[in-house]
Amino acid sequence: MSTTNHQAQQATAAAARERLAGYRRRFDARFEAYFDSLAGNLDTPPLSRFTPRCLDLLRDLSLRGGKRLRVALLYEAARLVTDEEPAGLAEAALSIELLQTHGLVHDDIIDDAPVRRGGPSTYYAYRREFPEDPGTALGLAVLAGDLAAFLSMRILLEADAPAALKQAMLEVQLGAGAETVAGQIIDLERDFEPLPSEELLHTVTEYKSTRYSILAPLRLGLLAAGEDLAGHDERLRRYATLAGISGQMRDDYLDLFGDEHTTGKSPGSDIRSGRRSYAVRAVLAAATTAERAVLESALGDPDCTAATIDRIRGIARDHGADAGLRSAMRRYAEDAAAEASAWRPHWRAEAVSFFEGLPLWNVQRTQ
Amino acid sequence: MSTTNHQAQQATAAAARERLAGYRRRFDARFEAYFDSLAGNLDTPPLSRFTPRCLDLLRDLSLRGGKRLRVALLYEAARLVTDEEPAGLAEAALSIELLQTHGLVHDDIIDDAPVRRGGPSTYYAYRREFPEDPGTALGLAVLAGDLAAFLSMRILLEADAPAALKQAMLEVQLGAGAETVAGQIIDLERDFEPLPSEELLHTVTEYKSTRYSILAPLRLGLLAAGEDLAGHDERLRRYATLAGISGQMRDDYLDLFGDEHTTGKSPGSDIRSGRRSYAVRAVLAAATTAERAVLESALGDPDCTAATIDRIRGIARDHGADAGLRSAMRRYAEDAAAEASAWRPHWRAEAVSFFEGLPLWNVQRTQ
Repeated sequence: MSTTNHQAQQATAAAARERLAGYRRRFDARFEAYFDSLAGNLDTPPLSRFTPRCLDLLRDLSLRGGKRLRVALLYEAARLVTDEEPAGLAEAALSIELLQTHGLVHDDIIDDAPVRRGGPSTYYAYRREFPEDPGTALGLAVLAGDLAAFLSMRILLEADAPAALKQAMLEVQLGAGAETVAGQIIDLERDFEPLPSEELLHTVTEYKSTRYSILAPLRLGLLAAGEDLAGHDERLRRYATLAGISGQMRDDYLDLFGDEHTTGKSPGSDIRSGRRSYAVRAVLAAATTAERAVLESALGDPDCTAATIDRIRGIARDHGADAGLRSAMRRYAEDAAAEASAWRPHWRAEAVSFFEGLPLWNVQRTQ
Repeated sequence: MSTTNHQAQQATAAAARERLAGYRRRFDARFEAYFDSLAGNLDTPPLSRFTPRCLDLLRDLSLRGGKRLRVALLYEAARLVTDEEPAGLAEAALSIELLQTHGLVHDDIIDDAPVRRGGPSTYYAYRREFPEDPGTALGLAVLAGDLAAFLSMRILLEADAPAALKQAMLEVQLGAGAETVAGQIIDLERDFEPLPSEELLHTVTEYKSTRYSILAPLRLGLLAAGEDLAGHDERLRRYATLAGISGQMRDDYLDLFGDEHTTGKSPGSDIRSGRRSYAVRAVLAAATTAERAVLESALGDPDCTAATIDRIRGIARDHGADAGLRSAMRRYAEDAAAEASAWRPHWRAEAVSFFEGLPLWNVQRTQ
């Protein structure tokens, strides 16, 4: 790559990072205002103490929200068409993140997970409040997740936008919600397979995260910007699928091979929870019978030691499984970037550059 | 009441029963066709065995569905305005019953209930399939309920009706979904109150069942028939609230005082599950300290004997709590009927008669 080319890319990345920070700041303020207005906007029983507590927990979890990459994808998707913020975009962003809250609350019940986003999961917050009564805690957590799902759809109706746009946005979000459920079902199913095929892992990724995290924000952003999706949906799907696989491979790679100082958590959580991730699969597929036995007995053992995880990393490196995964995720990222490049004739160059760059930035930390 | 008047009422009731049976028959056929077409209509992972199983369980529970009174309310509400079936009504009926399925699946997790509608609850069907793995069973049941919620909203978008009507119907159903969650939350909260006030029980009834079971069908039926709700919503609310309280009192009454041969289940299930129902509250409020202790120690005891339940029935009768509840439910039913009578200037007489008669027919079995 020439120096000029490289410098241009660095400048694009820096500008994109700045826009992302701006989206996040503005979105977080809007999300807080949404929860502030919710009490007056939602018809809840006047005598209840448990209902406001439920709303507080949804608010806490929602506002503790990471990078807001889905919101960035939404805003950049609209920017493919216009540099003004179109009507409905703010509500679409709220809908996306409320659907995420719904998914997280229920996911933490399914995984029996005490921690989420650096704080207690909603389920465990309730378990702490009802130490003698785990059934009530479970019930309240199920209900909190349900409420977030209804709210995530209802906010779209509040947009000051034509009924046809709201209907199209609801179709996208209700479809994303249903498909993500299917993805979570097949995610549970995956761990019953001794050696899941790569195709199965791609399918889990596609349904469990790509659809609602990448494809839905792209569609919603373009819809709000007035674009008719019919002629573009295949493009969006290709991009989302490739970027989704690359991103999931990166997450799975970092979980096993990541540096604790960079990732902020000790490696091997997928192994300890028995998740047959891309990284786990790569080791299982490459290892000898004896080595495979080491990994198999570690899978699903919450007390698996750091030394065992280290040994498994060694096995992986001996067979080049780590390098193989790095090059696979890079290949998917490059294919996603190439798909985005093909959007240039249709859409605004500045936003196209963002979609070209994003998958590559995402894998950079691992290369 | 004169003989002629009485005969006219009997004829109205007979005609209404026949219409109800017709609605139910036609709806059940449509509901089955909906599930038949769902596999082709829902984007689910091709490799999954768990996803079709989830759809099968939702189908089984949905088609095992009782009297379909909500569907009847919907169709009769449209009939207040027109005797043709308006566009969108069929989808509204499917939406109502899918939302009910969602609620039942999650309710049976919350109550840890093995049986629903004469078959296994979805949660317990999964527990039987994963006897070694209760976490997977719980996860799959949570997800099945989530899927039903998304489907119940999505079906409204499929109506061959103007976008404005679909939006209005979605507003009704998303509001009903959110308010029902609030109702289930306060229902859990209620059982932490030693002697819940009547007002609290009215609030639980209003949010937990009236809104989605009576008010939403009324609103959806009128909307589909082209009625603008703005001028009528107070009327609908008054009727729904009164009929809802009367109906809940009847259910609670029958649970304690009902005849096993008529109700098909042994009395006292509310006491055994610790539910402080209208009937339980009436006994608690009327009893002496010693008698109250009998009831308190039975509340929440799943092994409470039939003899103890009988003794509590005796205590209730000694204080006239049963007669008091019967007259209260009759009063609410009469008030609901009077509210419906006031609809005559606005709406078609034949359907108004149905709404007048319904609350009274509902309490007849107890009087």
